[in-house]
Amino acid sequence: MTFFDRQKLQEILLIERARLEEFKKLKLNLDMSRGKPSKAQLDLSNGLLDIVNSITYSIDNFDCRNYGLLDGLPQAKKLFSSLCEVDESEIIISGNSSLNIMYDNLQRAMQFGVNGGISFNKQGKIKWLCPVPGYDRHFAITELFGIEMINIPMTKDGPDMDMVEQLVASDESIKGIWCVPKFSNPQGIVYSDQTVTRFAKLQPKAKDFRIYWDNAYMVHSFSQDVELLNLLNEAKKFNNSDIVYMFGSTSKISFAGGGISYFIANKNNIESIANLMSKQTIGSNKLTQLAHVLYFKNTQNIKNHMQKHAELMRPKFKIVLESLQKELYDFATWIEPKGGYFVSVDLAEGTAKRTVELAREAGVVFTGAGATFPYRKDPNDSNLRIAPSFPPIEELNPAMDVFCCAAKIAFCEKHLA
Amino acid sequence: MTFFDRQKLQEILLIERARLEEFKKLKLNLDMSRGKPSKAQLDLSNGLLDIVNSITYSIDNFDCRNYGLLDGLPQAKKLFSSLCEVDESEIIISGNSSLNIMYDNLQRAMQFGVNGGISFNKQGKIKWLCPVPGYDRHFAITELFGIEMINIPMTKDGPDMDMVEQLVASDESIKGIWCVPKFSNPQGIVYSDQTVTRFAKLQPKAKDFRIYWDNAYMVHSFSQDVELLNLLNEAKKFNNSDIVYMFGSTSKISFAGGGISYFIANKNNIESIANLMSKQTIGSNKLTQLAHVLYFKNTQNIKNHMQKHAELMRPKFKIVLESLQKELYDFATWIEPKGGYFVSVDLAEGTAKRTVELAREAGVVFTGAGATFPYRKDPNDSNLRIAPSFPPIEELNPAMDVFCCAAKIAFCEKHLA
Repeated sequence: MTFFDRQKLQEILLIERARLEEFKKLKLNLDMSRGKPSKAQLDLSNGLLDIVNSITYSIDNFDCRNYGLLDGLPQAKKLFSSLCEVDESEIIISGNSSLNIMYDNLQRAMQFGVNGGISFNKQGKIKWLCPVPGYDRHFAITELFGIEMINIPMTKDGPDMDMVEQLVASDESIKGIWCVPKFSNPQGIVYSDQTVTRFAKLQPKAKDFRIYWDNAYMVHSFSQDVELLNLLNEAKKFNNSDIVYMFGSTSKISFAGGGISYFIANKNNIESIANLMSKQTIGSNKLTQLAHVLYFKNTQNIKNHMQKHAELMRPKFKIVLESLQKELYDFATWIEPKGGYFVSVDLAEGTAKRTVELAREAGVVFTGAGATFPYRKDPNDSNLRIAPSFPPIEELNPAMDVFCCAAKIAFCEKHLA
Repeated sequence: MTFFDRQKLQEILLIERARLEEFKKLKLNLDMSRGKPSKAQLDLSNGLLDIVNSITYSIDNFDCRNYGLLDGLPQAKKLFSSLCEVDESEIIISGNSSLNIMYDNLQRAMQFGVNGGISFNKQGKIKWLCPVPGYDRHFAITELFGIEMINIPMTKDGPDMDMVEQLVASDESIKGIWCVPKFSNPQGIVYSDQTVTRFAKLQPKAKDFRIYWDNAYMVHSFSQDVELLNLLNEAKKFNNSDIVYMFGSTSKISFAGGGISYFIANKNNIESIANLMSKQTIGSNKLTQLAHVLYFKNTQNIKNHMQKHAELMRPKFKIVLESLQKELYDFATWIEPKGGYFVSVDLAEGTAKRTVELAREAGVVFTGAGATFPYRKDPNDSNLRIAPSFPPIEELNPAMDVFCCAAKIAFCEKHLA
């Protein structure tokens, strides 16, 4: 912020309040709150809906309409383990939700312990590291289990690794950390090689500590790809792969909630999880897995397909970033993401809640202030997440106009109070 | 059994052993162990694979390719609540596995308690009623959670209700019962109206007791339908609907492991479960739900469709029952099922394990002896489950020949020992 001239602020407030009243007259009804793919993005995968039919339901003599294959269709294991550069034995293909796999893994740890260890339920207070800002649905899971969440500040290279290393080395009650290592939710940060290597070498005091590595946006760059080191493979170099759980899905490759998800880990972890899973289900829907195998065929096709997503996402992010640059240069900071689904904006302290409230009054819904923090408590009331993927492009300009206007009003109100 | 003449038994043993040696020469490789639908049955639903395509993915302006609808597609809720004769507000449509819903419900009770009650994990020893013989995957879930399983004998009308009522009224640690109320697994028994009414009126000491009512075969009769009272609606008459959890799926209507599943309960239970579910997933695959809605359209079509299944199942059960009648009349007892997937055979005490072993030597796999009991312990080593659905009809005669031959050998060995 470069100015705190009261008179100047009063002028801005007057102008922006008048502007907001004009927006209200437009009776806007826009939603920028969730990272949902747009119709145009979903259309890119429509071929998936035609490729499995009453002729093509079998593959290599296996009938995908019947029971079996707890860990997934071998051809799907091959495709997605190849995409993730791990061995086929290190992946389990699951249903439509990687969030569900994360929840189930944590619930299993709560109930049965990790790989035969003592159940978390019997270990008293359990704690979890939460890089902030982060993904609200991650935090909701740990909150539900009564796990104490510890905020870890994000840097441009990923979580503050000094803090992570120090905490896990000294406190046996810390059992895990939520990570979105590539195009992090919401900041779009890609963990640096050094950060990944430090995770790979991590020496937690708790032997049942696991890194929950939610690589939701691994192929979701807007233009040139940004490399992320493979955590499982790095950890193997240090004979430390037990601490790695990796997750992914096609929710933002094919269909959101209509695709497939997967869990990746070393042999010890896969065996232990699969053994418990075998009591929970006979297996996931293999027809959906088959469709992905037949439609995408190989990793290069997935990467080409993601370029089409990028072409749809790029102009949307351009509008958001240009709008921020033009209007909020003096009022906020943000990081320009190179991929993913979000733009994270840090407004002036104490103005995020008010900004969301004002925008809502003008018919534009943003993710609630605080949502990006454990317990929905942003200590600075400053961070907001903008999700530009879902609305058609023509709605983004009015939505961002309202956002910037609201942020400026909140800023002026705060500094004039 | 009508004869125990040693000489007669020795004659039979000689004949049947020679016969088994002949079977071994055939190098059979047949599997009668699991209740999997046959290819011909799965073919009945192939239209499902063509009905959702790149044109038809939306319904009533809702795009089934995107996130949303935790409790399922409204049109799917309508269809299956209508089939189950409950209100649309009383059903949640889920993924491909009703077993998974049962597991998750029990895990939630273990971790969080039932509807805000004390978690089972914190209540010390937990017990569960298990009508026997029963479904091995049910018992595997309660065993995994360390829940003590109590055998309840089955009668021709369902579980021994005197015993059920007495136990639940006196022991607060009993929290549930596994039931397959129609064409029970494995006996094919349909619970009588009186049995269902007694369940509906059940007054367990534990307020967090639930009946796990797995109505897996609700529309799976071989000819004329056999009526089962609707437990939820009956329980409402006695203001007692909180104790009812009902489950079902299309695994044996459309595709096994490729269909949809559902959970049915009253408003209290649905709200509590949905609230916890909302942390676990954003929702199930709605494209599969949509396919079922578009393909089946209404309950009458589902019932007509099930008649086609019946036509495929009837001749298979006929072979099994004729074979038993012809060969094992003096050696075993069984119930003739009017629907479902299994024939349950009670052999002479102490001969079930040996029968399975001998059949396996001749290349025919049956469900392991004991599988139909908690802890895989049949106290009489007598009950075996025959699953005739999967093998092509031409394999059933040799498989049953081997079964009967093996049972007779085991009988003679036992009584000559």
